[in-house]
Order: sequence, then structure tokens, then C-alpha cells
Amino acid sequence: MPRLVMKFGGTSVANIDRIRRAAKRVGAEVAKGYDVIVIVSAMSGKTNEMVGWVRETSKLYDSAEYDAVVSSGENVTAGLMALTLQEMGVQARSWQGWQVPVLTTGQHERARIEDIPNANLNAAFDAGNKVAVVAGFQGVSPDGRITTLGRGGSDTTAVAFAAAFDAERCDIYTDVDGVYTTDPRVCDKARKLDKIAFEEMLELASLGAKVLQTRSVELAMRYKVKLRVLSSFEEMSDAAGTLVCSEEEIMESNVVAGVAFSKDEAKMTLISVADRPGIAAAIFMPLSEAGVNVDMIVQNISEEGRTDMTFSCPADQVLLAETAMKAAKERGEINFHDVVADEAVAKVSVVGIGMRSAAGVAAKMFKTLADNEINIKIITTSEIKISVLIERKYMELAVQALHDVFGLDKAA
Amino acid sequence: MPRLVMKFGGTSVANIDRIRRAAKRVGAEVAKGYDVIVIVSAMSGKTNEMVGWVRETSKLYDSAEYDAVVSSGENVTAGLMALTLQEMGVQARSWQGWQVPVLTTGQHERARIEDIPNANLNAAFDAGNKVAVVAGFQGVSPDGRITTLGRGGSDTTAVAFAAAFDAERCDIYTDVDGVYTTDPRVCDKARKLDKIAFEEMLELASLGAKVLQTRSVELAMRYKVKLRVLSSFEEMSDAAGTLVCSEEEIMESNVVAGVAFSKDEAKMTLISVADRPGIAAAIFMPLSEAGVNVDMIVQNISEEGRTDMTFSCPADQVLLAETAMKAAKERGEINFHDVVADEAVAKVSVVGIGMRSAAGVAAKMFKTLADNEINIKIITTSEIKISVLIERKYMELAVQALHDVFGLDKAA
Repeated sequence: MPRLVMKFGGTSVANIDRIRRAAKRVGAEVAKGYDVIVIVSAMSGKTNEMVGWVRETSKLYDSAEYDAVVSSGENVTAGLMALTLQEMGVQARSWQGWQVPVLTTGQHERARIEDIPNANLNAAFDAGNKVAVVAGFQGVSPDGRITTLGRGGSDTTAVAFAAAFDAERCDIYTDVDGVYTTDPRVCDKARKLDKIAFEEMLELASLGAKVLQTRSVELAMRYKVKLRVLSSFEEMSDAAGTLVCSEEEIMESNVVAGVAFSKDEAKMTLISVADRPGIAAAIFMPLSEAGVNVDMIVQNISEEGRTDMTFSCPADQVLLAETAMKAAKERGEINFHDVVADEAVAKVSVVGIGMRSAAGVAAKMFKTLADNEINIKIITTSEIKISVLIERKYMELAVQALHDVFGLDKAA
Repeated sequence: MPRLVMKFGGTSVANIDRIRRAAKRVGAEVAKGYDVIVIVSAMSGKTNEMVGWVRETSKLYDSAEYDAVVSSGENVTAGLMALTLQEMGVQARSWQGWQVPVLTTGQHERARIEDIPNANLNAAFDAGNKVAVVAGFQGVSPDGRITTLGRGGSDTTAVAFAAAFDAERCDIYTDVDGVYTTDPRVCDKARKLDKIAFEEMLELASLGAKVLQTRSVELAMRYKVKLRVLSSFEEMSDAAGTLVCSEEEIMESNVVAGVAFSKDEAKMTLISVADRPGIAAAIFMPLSEAGVNVDMIVQNISEEGRTDMTFSCPADQVLLAETAMKAAKERGEINFHDVVADEAVAKVSVVGIGMRSAAGVAAKMFKTLADNEINIKIITTSEIKISVLIERKYMELAVQALHDVFGLDKAA
């Protein structure tokens, strides 16, 4: 039998009615002839309730016990989903991580899946089971303790099962109906993509389009798992959602696949830094140690042995960054005239695998911004992405203009 | 190190504050030099919430999935208790049933513990752990699925661990402060017992004094586990609660240990039954098959080949019993003139191991009831118990009079 993995997130299994609706989708795939592995999250709100209890017991809690507590939400949903499928006449049973088993590393709260032996589930399918309902987000460590994969880990569970059981596709049911060219709340011409390449999805996800956990996309890319993101609140259809796949499977595509943005950015400038070999390390090591997530970096041309060093970081880390810089100055590690923060900035990026073969994307982007009188503060580029830092008040304008100029409202 | 088992029921772990209070009691025993096995129930209300969801999915649910869902409440408490102990500086970790492992039969919802191999917990104690927090009520079946022991099963878990780990004592923390000579709400002279014999506790429990699950007392009796029932809401003291133990450990005791009662009883009479060999079986087999819990039975002296047959059963099974009797009559299996139910009755019992060696207890009981003009409808006796069925309106009066006449307000 061909295999399918279907993953349902917390809002899709929030109560028995929704579990029943999800189970109907599973039943429809079974009717088409698939053996289905269903991965479930905890009912929405349940994980937060348990995390709250854990934090109430102690500030510096033991991660192993955190995992033992927090993993129970998925177990409840898995049992309820199996019961609902049985009630519909579909032969199903629930599996907890240790029963499959989902073998992980021993790093609690952020374990990585090492192996999923498929003997147990295959024996169940051979014995007539049509559906294996697996509790997502969890596994078992080498010493037999329960582990969890980190927030959003059920996506990773789903992709890992799709790879281990050679599934035809891995469908991720969530509360959005797919991946968009940009956020429809910012640009009303935003269009749902039918397909997107893994690499593009990774750039979009890490830039803030939080549809899929980044790790699950990386895993899907490595094992060539066809990943489909779709809404559990819409009519069923084979064309629903967005397929995340290898670029070879995308026949035609726009040069630019999407425009991403992030508005909670800040620009920090160290004014008049003594320019000497090793100065970048002297600045960015203490920032890293202080936990500041430095993103874009630009260094002005040096004049008379001094330069300005500018970088961006999340807006809520400005104080952390300032404190770290002043401390380094007091220790004599660096020397600068002043540190200036600009918290009214945003990052806008265009992403697309087509950029690798098409010239002039950067030029077109910069001209469009210039035509709209938007000043660029920092630029960074990668093979498939160009990002600029601009004044925050121009963010919506920039997104809309770039969406237009790259023709994202129209399919390729 | 000497071992102690401490079990905390749902109300004793209802929130983090209460878990903290329970953890302090555990810490105090660790400070005395004990290695402690803590058995926890689900936070009160949680099991009912999950049972509700299971019932919402389907009427005829799969017991294996019920167990997978419902067992998760204990896992949450076990983790939270371990975290709280760690925060207090006590080395502790949680154990789920399959991790210990608690090996049970495969009868879901009512599994029986078959074995508790002690290698894993002993290794943890040897490595410096002072407390093993075990999720009560659950185990693992021979084919690796989660089982539960039935409602109140955490008491049984506690006693089984006390037996398997040769614990000095098994303390059951609950919301009552011990076992009483009778219900204080019915008789204000009711007195808390310091000690009670296993056999007496069994008779009291099955008669409605629902402090301990009956199975846990049977298990404690078989393995000679000293069982103490005490409140988690009172000051700690070595004399707290009631010790349930072998009768050899009770030096002095009253002939009668307690007066039990049950008011939800009904008396059923089959009038003018054809009296022939096998008639009792012909009546009580269909009742048993219909699920009627017949308790006391009395048969009148036969006259002219016909007799009246009277029995008691729970008041809410009257309709069930009537239907079964009429069906048996229609099938020609029995013949009677009429079936009459009296739902205004109650059962009152006196219980005490001293009755085995003391004569005249029954006579004293009957005379006391007669002096109070209470008519007895049915009598049954066992080695350590005499029960009577009386009109319900006299129940309180009977309990108070018997409590007085057997001197239960005074210690032996």
C-alpha cells in the first residue's frame, strides 16, 4: 500500500468536533487506498497549561522532567484520534514515542531524531491497521527517558516519519491555507503559491513566515520528502495548499518567489571605532556571548584609522547590545566614540531560486526602492535572497512595490 | 536504606501549592533516612476531563485507547512532583509505568499487576536518588501497550510497590484523616481508630466506607504491607491517621471495630414462587446475567409447594431486576405471583475480628434494634460481620444505638 503522512496541529485538534473533522480527512485518504501515519499535536492550549505548571514549580527546572510532563498532551490527542477513527469504522491505534520507538538524542527539550525503526508500525499495518496515530513532538532517549523536539517539533516528527516510511507525501494541516508570496495583511495582492522550493521556504521561514518549523523543512530537503502545507478548515481538494518540494519539480517559476519582512529590527552603530586587525572579532565576540543575535553587518570605509561599524539585531536586544559594548570598552577591548541605536527600522527581503540564473534582480530591487524615495541603510545578499534594512515607516510601501515590480500577483 | 512508600491522591496534588505541601512531607521522610517511592494520582478533575473526551468520541470505545488517554494525568503529576522535590534540594526523578516497568495483564481498564521488577528503581537509588516518583494507576501489558488498574487503582499501585520493594510502611495520603468507627456525619460520637485489622477494613470498605480501594487492602493483607491512611491537610505526626495491619499487631481491640451502613439499597420480593429443586439458580442466574448485584438473600418457609423469595440489591438496579425476573417468567423458567420492590430500606452492619471469639454479639445487636422498635427485614452474617436490612428512616437511629451499645466511642 502507498503510504501518506498527515500532521494535524493544535488548532486542528482543539476539541472533539475538530478531531472528528480531521479524522474525516484521514478516512478519505484511507478510502483512496493509502496506509496513513497521522501525527498529532496537543489540543491547543494544553501544552501552554503544562509549561505554566512546570515554571510554577521552579525557575531552573530539570529538562528531563519538563519533557515527561509536556509530552503528555500529544498522548491524549493520539488516543482520542484513534478512538474517533475507530468510531468511523477505520482500523486505527495510537502510538506514543517510546512505543514506535522514535529514538532521539538525550538533549531534553531539543532532542534530535536519530532513527525510527519501522518494524512495529509495519507489523500493525500488515495485521490490517489502516492508520497509525503517532504522538508528535516526542521521542525516547538512549537511557529510556522521554524527550521532546522543541516547539513546533511535531512538524519534524511528521517529516521524519515520511522519510522513514517512504511516504508518497507529508501533508501538514494547519490554520493557514498555504504559503503566500507575502503577508496578505500587508499587501492585498499577495497570492498563494502552488509550489515552492525547499530553499525558498527556508529563507522565508527564517525571515518570519512562520508556517513550518525550519528544522522540518531542512529534513524534508535532505530526504526529498514532498511536503504540503494546507488548512484543516477548508474543503478537501488535491490542489489545496502549497507543495514544498525540490526545485526540479517546479517547472515554471517567477524569478522571485516571495517578499519577506521583519519589523522588529534595530540598527546599532558604533561611531569612530579604532580600525585595526581583529576589531570585528573584538566587537562581535562580546555581543555573541551576551546573547545578541546579530544579523546584518556593514563597515564604513576607514578614514584616518577610524571607522563606523553598523549592525542589526532584534529590537528587544538593543539594551543588551549597548551594555555589552560599553563593558567591552571599559575593559579596553574596543575603543569607540559613541554607540547609537535606531529602533525605527525594518528588514525587507526578496527570495527566489530563480535569482541564481537571472541577472539584475538586485538592481531592480534598489531602483524600485529609490523610485519610492526609500533610503537603504544596510544591504546583505545570499545566492537566493537580497535583504535591505530601511526606515520602518516605509516597510509596507516597500513590500507592495517589490511585490508589484517582480510580478508576484501573477503565476509564472 | 529503609524504604517507605507514600501515595498522594488527587485532592492532595490538585495544584502546584498542594504538590509543594505534599513534597514537604516527602522531604521530611527523606530527612529521617528513608529512600522514598512516591505514588501520585492525577490532579483532581483531570481524569474526569479525559474520560469525558473519550466518551465524546464514541459510546463503545476501545479500552486500550481509553487507557492511553486517561493514564496521562498521572504522568503530569509525577513530573511536577519530581520537579518540586528537586527545587527543594531532594534528588528525585519521575517514572511512568512502562519505565519502571509495572508489568500487568492485558485487560484494559481493569488490569492486574503481575510483577514489578525492581532493578531500574534500585539502580536509581544506588546512584544517589532519594525519591522515585511513580505515576500511579498505570502499567504496561505483555504486548507493550499502556494499561490502567481501574478507578482508585493508585492505592493498589502503592501497595504493590511497598510489597515489591519491601517498604517499612505504605502511607496513603488522602482527604480524610483516617478510618472511623462509623461516619461522623451520622453519629457524632464516631471516633478515629488508631489501628484496624485488614479483614475489618475489607468489610468496612465493601460496605461503603470508601477510604481505600478494596483491592489494595486485599493485596496489603496478602503481602503483610503495613498500610497507613492519613490526611495530607493535617499537621505531620507519627501517630496521625489509621494503621491498617495484621490482627497480631493489634494488642487490644473492641469486639466490634465499627458500624457500617449503606442507604442506597432496595429489597425485592418474588411472591409465591413454585418451590422446587434448582429454583434459586433459576432466579439468580438471570439476575447475574442482567448485571444485578444481589447482596442478601432470604427464602421463607415453603407452604403447599410455594414460597416467597426475598433479596436485596442497589436501589438503582430495581428496574433491571424486575425486567430480568419478568423475562424469565415469560420464558417459563420460573413461576411467581408477583414481584414487589421496597426501595425505602438501608443496610446496617457491625464489623469486628473480636466477634470470632466473643459470643452474644448478634443477640446484643438484635436486642438493641428491638429496644428501639426497629424491625429487621433480612439478616446475614459472616465470621466478622453481622448485617441487617431495616427501614431507611431508622438508619441513623440504628447506627447511633449500635455505636453506643458496643462502646465504640471509647478506645479498647
